[in-house]
Amino acid sequence: MQTVSVPLGERAYDVRIASGLLDRAAEYCLPLIPGKRALLVSDQTVYALYGQRLTEALTAAGVRVAAVTFPPGEASKSLATYEKILQAAAAVPLTGGDAFVALGGGVTGDLTGFAAATYHRGIRFMQVPTTLLAAVDSSVGGKTGVNLPAGKNLVGAFWQPRLVLCDPDLLQTLAPARYADGLAECLKYGVLWDEALFSQLEQGALFRVTEEQTARCVELKRDVVLLDERDGGQRQLLNLGHTIGHAIEQSSGYAVSHGAAVGLGMLLMARLFCPAIAGRLARALEANGLPTQLHLSLTQVAEALTQDKKRVGGEITLVVPQQIGQCELRKLPVAEVQNLLCSVEAKEEMA
Amino acid sequence: MQTVSVPLGERAYDVRIASGLLDRAAEYCLPLIPGKRALLVSDQTVYALYGQRLTEALTAAGVRVAAVTFPPGEASKSLATYEKILQAAAAVPLTGGDAFVALGGGVTGDLTGFAAATYHRGIRFMQVPTTLLAAVDSSVGGKTGVNLPAGKNLVGAFWQPRLVLCDPDLLQTLAPARYADGLAECLKYGVLWDEALFSQLEQGALFRVTEEQTARCVELKRDVVLLDERDGGQRQLLNLGHTIGHAIEQSSGYAVSHGAAVGLGMLLMARLFCPAIAGRLARALEANGLPTQLHLSLTQVAEALTQDKKRVGGEITLVVPQQIGQCELRKLPVAEVQNLLCSVEAKEEMA
Repeated sequence: MQTVSVPLGERAYDVRIASGLLDRAAEYCLPLIPGKRALLVSDQTVYALYGQRLTEALTAAGVRVAAVTFPPGEASKSLATYEKILQAAAAVPLTGGDAFVALGGGVTGDLTGFAAATYHRGIRFMQVPTTLLAAVDSSVGGKTGVNLPAGKNLVGAFWQPRLVLCDPDLLQTLAPARYADGLAECLKYGVLWDEALFSQLEQGALFRVTEEQTARCVELKRDVVLLDERDGGQRQLLNLGHTIGHAIEQSSGYAVSHGAAVGLGMLLMARLFCPAIAGRLARALEANGLPTQLHLSLTQVAEALTQDKKRVGGEITLVVPQQIGQCELRKLPVAEVQNLLCSVEAKEEMA
Repeated sequence: MQTVSVPLGERAYDVRIASGLLDRAAEYCLPLIPGKRALLVSDQTVYALYGQRLTEALTAAGVRVAAVTFPPGEASKSLATYEKILQAAAAVPLTGGDAFVALGGGVTGDLTGFAAATYHRGIRFMQVPTTLLAAVDSSVGGKTGVNLPAGKNLVGAFWQPRLVLCDPDLLQTLAPARYADGLAECLKYGVLWDEALFSQLEQGALFRVTEEQTARCVELKRDVVLLDERDGGQRQLLNLGHTIGHAIEQSSGYAVSHGAAVGLGMLLMARLFCPAIAGRLARALEANGLPTQLHLSLTQVAEALTQDKKRVGGEITLVVPQQIGQCELRKLPVAEVQNLLCSVEAKEEMA
C-alpha cells in the first residue's frame, strides 16, 4: 500500500492507495465514524458497480449506511443535486459524529465535499475515488463545489476529507476516454514539477498508471496544498491548462471533457509561451488518448474567459510553462489574453 | 460611536454602532471593497425602507451596487433564496475583490453570509443589521446558514463578516414584537454573564436599548466566539433557550417568533433547573413584550427535539441557568429531556 499523509494539523488525513481497498474500507473508515452512520453518495453508474460492496464492507463493521444517487455526468454537479444530498442526510439524520462517503469521480467528490462542508456547518467526509482524475487530483486538497449556469465551480468551500481510499482496481472499469481525463492531470504534474514522471507517462499510460505514480501525483498536489491551502498563491500553479480549459469546456457546452480541455489548455499555453516543449507535449497527449486539436472557435473561448472566477480586477493569472518540470504564474490583462488567443486562431486559419 | 473589535487574526473585524451610520457607510465599507462592486442583499420590506439610501451612500463613493431582494420572513431562509442570491452575484459578476452587503435582520444576514462563504469558495461580506436581534446576535460571530424542510439552520458555514455597521435609527421602524425578539437575546446575555445588564433591561426596554447596551451584548458574544469560534465548547452557552426554542419554533410551524421561542425556552430551563430565578425571568420577559405562556403541547416540542442537530449520539447539551449571570452546559440523554418536558406538561394540566 502507498500512503500519502496530508499533515494539516487537526485536519490531517491520509490518502491510501492499494488494490483491494474497497472491500477493506471499514478498517480505515470505522475509527472516523464514531456516530456509526454514513451517507454513501454516488452516481447511478458507479453505485451499480461498487455501491453494494462498499455498503456491505461498512455494514459488516457496524456502520448503518444510507445511500443517495443521481445521474452520472457534469450536469449533476448542481445546486439541485446538492440539495438532494442534504435532504438525504437530514432524513437519516446524519449528525456530528457521522460521515458522508463520496464513491465516485470528481463530480461526486466535489458535490459530497460541499454537502459535508455545509451540512450542520461542516461534518466529516471520506473520498473513495473511482476515476483516475479523482484519485490523482480532485479527491485531495479540499476544494469542493458545484456549478452555476454562469460557470463551473462558482459555488463551494474549502473542506478537507478525513480519509481518501483509492483502490486502483475500480479504475479498470472506466471508459478509456475517462481514464485519459486523469492522465491529463498526471501529465500536468509532470509539466509543473517532475520531468521524470512526465517521461514515465509520455509514451502512453492508458490503464497503466502504477500505485507509485498515483502516489507521486498525490504527493505533488499535497505539497502545494500545504503551502497554500486556500489558493491565494502557489496553489494556483495547479491551474495549468485549467484557466483556458474551463473556458473550453464551457464554450463546448461541456462536450469537451475536463481532461481533454486541460490537455488542450496546457498545449495552448505551451504554444503561446514555451514553443520548445509544444511538440513533446502534443505527442504525450496523443499517446495518452487525449486530443490536440480544438474543434471550437478560440474567439468563443476568449469570450468565456471573461466569466472566469480567476479574473480579479480585469486580470487573469495564467500558469506559463518554462520547461517540462517548471512553470510560473503570470498575471496578464484579460484583453491581452483574449488578443493572444485570437491571434493563434488567425494564424491557424491562415495555415 | 461604540466600536467592538473582534480580533480573529487575519479575519479581524469591527462592529460599529452609531446613529446615522447608514448614510456614512461608504467611509467604512470602501477600504474593504477593492474591486468596487457590491451586491446588496435585502428583503423587500427592508429594501423599500433603506435600500436606496445605502445604495446612494456606496455609489457616491464609487462602488457599483447591484441588488437582490426576496420576500420577508423565515420562509425565505431557504436553499431557493440562496440560489437566487448566488445567481445574482454571478450576473454582476462579483469576483474576489468585491463584497456582499447584508441589509436586514437575521434571515438576510444568515443567507448573505452563507452565499458569501460559498460564492467562489468564499468572498467578503458586510452586515448592516436592521433588527435588534441581528444587531446584538446574528450579525456577529460568523454563523451563517439556511433552513431545510427538516429543520432550522441545517445547512451553513462559519464565515465571519469583514465589518458590521449598526445604525440604531434603523431599528425604530421595527414592529414592537420584532424589537422584542431582540430583547430576548439581550436578556439572554444578562442571564448568561451579566446581572447588571439584566437589571437594566428587566423593567422593559422596548425601543430603548442604548448604543452602550448594544455594544455590551456584542462584547459578550464576541468574547465567547473568540474562545470557541466553531462552536465545539463554550460557545454552546449561547444556545441558552435555543435548543428548546428551536423545537418550539418548529412545532409551531414558525408561528412563534425566534425571540419569543428563546424567551420561552429560557423560562422552561429556569423552571426545570433553577426555579429560584423563574419568577424574575418571567416578569422581565413580560415587561419586554415577550410571551411567558406556551400555547403548544410540550409533548410535540419534545418530539421536535429529536431532530435537533445539537443532538449527538442520543444526547442533548442543554444550557442550564444557575443564577442570573451564570449558566452551565449539561449533557443529558434525549429521552430524559423529553421526559422532563412531558412531566412539566402533566403538572401544568393538573394545575
